[in-house]
Amino acid sequence: MLKIGVLVSGGGTNLQAIIDSIESNYIKNAEIAVVVSSNPNAYALERAKNHNIEGVTIRKKDFSDVSLYEQALIDCFKERNVELIVMAGFMVVIGEKFIDAFRNRIMNVHPSLIPAFCGDGFYGLRVHEAALKRGVKLTGATVHFVNEITDGGPIILQKAVEVMEDDTPEVLQKRVMQEAEWIIYPEAVKLFAEGRLSVVDDKVIIRR
Amino acid sequence: MLKIGVLVSGGGTNLQAIIDSIESNYIKNAEIAVVVSSNPNAYALERAKNHNIEGVTIRKKDFSDVSLYEQALIDCFKERNVELIVMAGFMVVIGEKFIDAFRNRIMNVHPSLIPAFCGDGFYGLRVHEAALKRGVKLTGATVHFVNEITDGGPIILQKAVEVMEDDTPEVLQKRVMQEAEWIIYPEAVKLFAEGRLSVVDDKVIIRR
Repeated sequence: MLKIGVLVSGGGTNLQAIIDSIESNYIKNAEIAVVVSSNPNAYALERAKNHNIEGVTIRKKDFSDVSLYEQALIDCFKERNVELIVMAGFMVVIGEKFIDAFRNRIMNVHPSLIPAFCGDGFYGLRVHEAALKRGVKLTGATVHFVNEITDGGPIILQKAVEVMEDDTPEVLQKRVMQEAEWIIYPEAVKLFAEGRLSVVDDKVIIRR
Repeated sequence: MLKIGVLVSGGGTNLQAIIDSIESNYIKNAEIAVVVSSNPNAYALERAKNHNIEGVTIRKKDFSDVSLYEQALIDCFKERNVELIVMAGFMVVIGEKFIDAFRNRIMNVHPSLIPAFCGDGFYGLRVHEAALKRGVKLTGATVHFVNEITDGGPIILQKAVEVMEDDTPEVLQKRVMQEAEWIIYPEAVKLFAEGRLSVVDDKVIIRR
């Protein structure tokens, strides 16, 4: 049974997509061991509670330095035998120590087709604002392993989504979530749980 | 009847896709008035000849400066009442004078989902090499109007194509042509010929 740790800061819709995929048995042999929030008021903690998943708040500001903060995260996950970390709208930049502790075991979803509209400063609505400003006709989402480069880690799955001419950033954000993120994030977790992902030369190989 | 001018330098497979789309009546009310090559040995000129389309070679090196070269291109097209220029593997960088003469009337296809893998230095196989190096799972093609920024003009159509794990740049290039370029380039020309494209605020609006 793969134990998953989820990092959240807000609403946790991607957390919900993964919970649903486990409960419906789309993802087998996996369970969410703990949801760690950077914010005690995150609605994601309510979602965890509603599904009898342990919720924990760990705030960066409660630690005297970043290394101690990252060690607290590492300890929290290691104590629970977590083998996969899923970032689901986690708004804290995590550093080398944490990444090293879970190399190729931390996933994130980014709301664009990387390498378009990604990197520092591209998060949340800003990604969709940039896509609309450029006038792209396709955007999408990317699930990737996290490394030291913002949105620069090995790509696991990508899915394209059409941009409509009257889209606002909010409307496009919602479509990208519904048509891409909530589909490929559970799929990536499923592939991981089935032992079908490997990283070779910074690229993800999927055993089909 | 829309008169189209096509700029080529090599094999002209995108030229062929457009010829076929006109002959099959997928693109209506349009004809290719002239194919202009930068290279007298371009196979694209054979394709033109095979379909009774006038072929002309205009070489940059035959002119004492760029302005005269661009004027020769402009004259060639204006004399034939060309209203749409289609770049089909044209390997010469065209400048402001030519672009100004046919503002939002020059189309190009780029073998990636712009803004990924585009701009100076990204042409031909280099685009696909870069995509494979980054390990993207989706790539594709983009048809856009040409402006002063390399691959930076208003986007008309985009289509995604899957990357396979054993792809070489050559294999990926061929798949992107077959599954994206040869489909969306004729579609973009058809939309133009039907008067359904307009550019507002550097973005293409398609009247559906």
